[in-house]
Amino acid sequence: MNLIVDVGNTYVKFAVYDKQNLIHKMSFELSEFENQYKIVKKSFPDLKKAIISSVGYSSKEHVSFIKKDMNVLLLNSELNFPFINKYQTPKTLGVDRMALVSASVDKYPNNNVLIIDAGTCVTYDFVTKENHYLGGAISPGIRLRYKSLNNLTANLPLLDTEQPKHIIGDSTESSIHSGVINGIVQEIDGVIGQYQEDYSDLTVILTGGDAKFLSNQLKNSIFANSNFLLDGLNFILEYNSK
Amino acid sequence: MNLIVDVGNTYVKFAVYDKQNLIHKMSFELSEFENQYKIVKKSFPDLKKAIISSVGYSSKEHVSFIKKDMNVLLLNSELNFPFINKYQTPKTLGVDRMALVSASVDKYPNNNVLIIDAGTCVTYDFVTKENHYLGGAISPGIRLRYKSLNNLTANLPLLDTEQPKHIIGDSTESSIHSGVINGIVQEIDGVIGQYQEDYSDLTVILTGGDAKFLSNQLKNSIFANSNFLLDGLNFILEYNSK
Repeated sequence: MNLIVDVGNTYVKFAVYDKQNLIHKMSFELSEFENQYKIVKKSFPDLKKAIISSVGYSSKEHVSFIKKDMNVLLLNSELNFPFINKYQTPKTLGVDRMALVSASVDKYPNNNVLIIDAGTCVTYDFVTKENHYLGGAISPGIRLRYKSLNNLTANLPLLDTEQPKHIIGDSTESSIHSGVINGIVQEIDGVIGQYQEDYSDLTVILTGGDAKFLSNQLKNSIFANSNFLLDGLNFILEYNSK
Repeated sequence: MNLIVDVGNTYVKFAVYDKQNLIHKMSFELSEFENQYKIVKKSFPDLKKAIISSVGYSSKEHVSFIKKDMNVLLLNSELNFPFINKYQTPKTLGVDRMALVSASVDKYPNNNVLIIDAGTCVTYDFVTKENHYLGGAISPGIRLRYKSLNNLTANLPLLDTEQPKHIIGDSTESSIHSGVINGIVQEIDGVIGQYQEDYSDLTVILTGGDAKFLSNQLKNSIFANSNFLLDGLNFILEYNSK
């Protein structure tokens, strides 16, 4: 069994895989790391190896903490990946994006795939059917947009995420919901359309914490898979353990 | 001659109108207010009345400062406007948006008009050909998007605004430029498309500090007018002086 650890911008995720199958998943704040690790270790004594993906924060402490019990891989650009990385600056490519691309190559080989991860940020990643990763884009996610309207302007409230009832908002609140949610939907549909102009056989994966909320609002057809990143990390762990 | 004062989220703008004609415009930081006022007063001794529009900040001091020299109107929802306001909460409608709608009714009477103001925020405002203002949307502007990616995430740099060379960014920097600039362009084009589904004869105005930068990137045809808000304020000043 494998333990997958994903240290994101907001939460930490643990996932337990039995071969390719996700059998357990949990999410918590960074300060809870050691407690939650003890719980998962006790519940799944068959855990044999782990991989840690960390966006931004140093995870050296976490690595040594888990190393007492099992082999640990810290995800970085020096590992083996199942694709050819055409990114100009591979060392600065977010490790989460490398995991998404790995999952894509594993699940959709010989496809032109656009992976859209809607979380703190919306990341767009494109892999050709020759398994060449070309890059993509990074844009603010739903919560970031709500927060920035409040933090960085003089007079707008911080709102909870809410589906707008109409594209024409008739109050400050409904105007913000339309601007953030309908805006991000239009952006994602527009970007998919741009890729389709060049790649008519495009496969689109939507993942990340906001994937479920967004998936039925898009006019383009997409595959929604909220475990795509975790699947990719499990794949990389196996790929580098052989 | 009229003095138009627009206190925005980032800068203050002064504009001098001779009847409907903008003859002078300047932009500066809030702390420079009194100095800049003295300069404009000296350069244009024929100034007879003024209007102040302020987003968020209290402008009572500014009003009393200018009142020594001329009549001053502080823009608020109690004034007379040339349109019927269908906004549910007219008192919370940003006064800048009321000025944009006034300019629209003045310049494009009997048109269905979508006004897009791309500044600190991107505001969308819709007025029907019957001069009914229905509302719109508020979304983060270009600089807010760049700032939020840096401020509110663990590991992304703060970049200056830059036109992306390609929609597929192949470095952190080019990915961010694509996500912010191409993202906002796709959003705006998408929203225009949604309004066009209901109003095939839609007139679209693009204004605000980023109007020039964005105007030639949109696939929809729009009228770019960077003085739309100032024109609207001058119109309201005249409309309430009769």
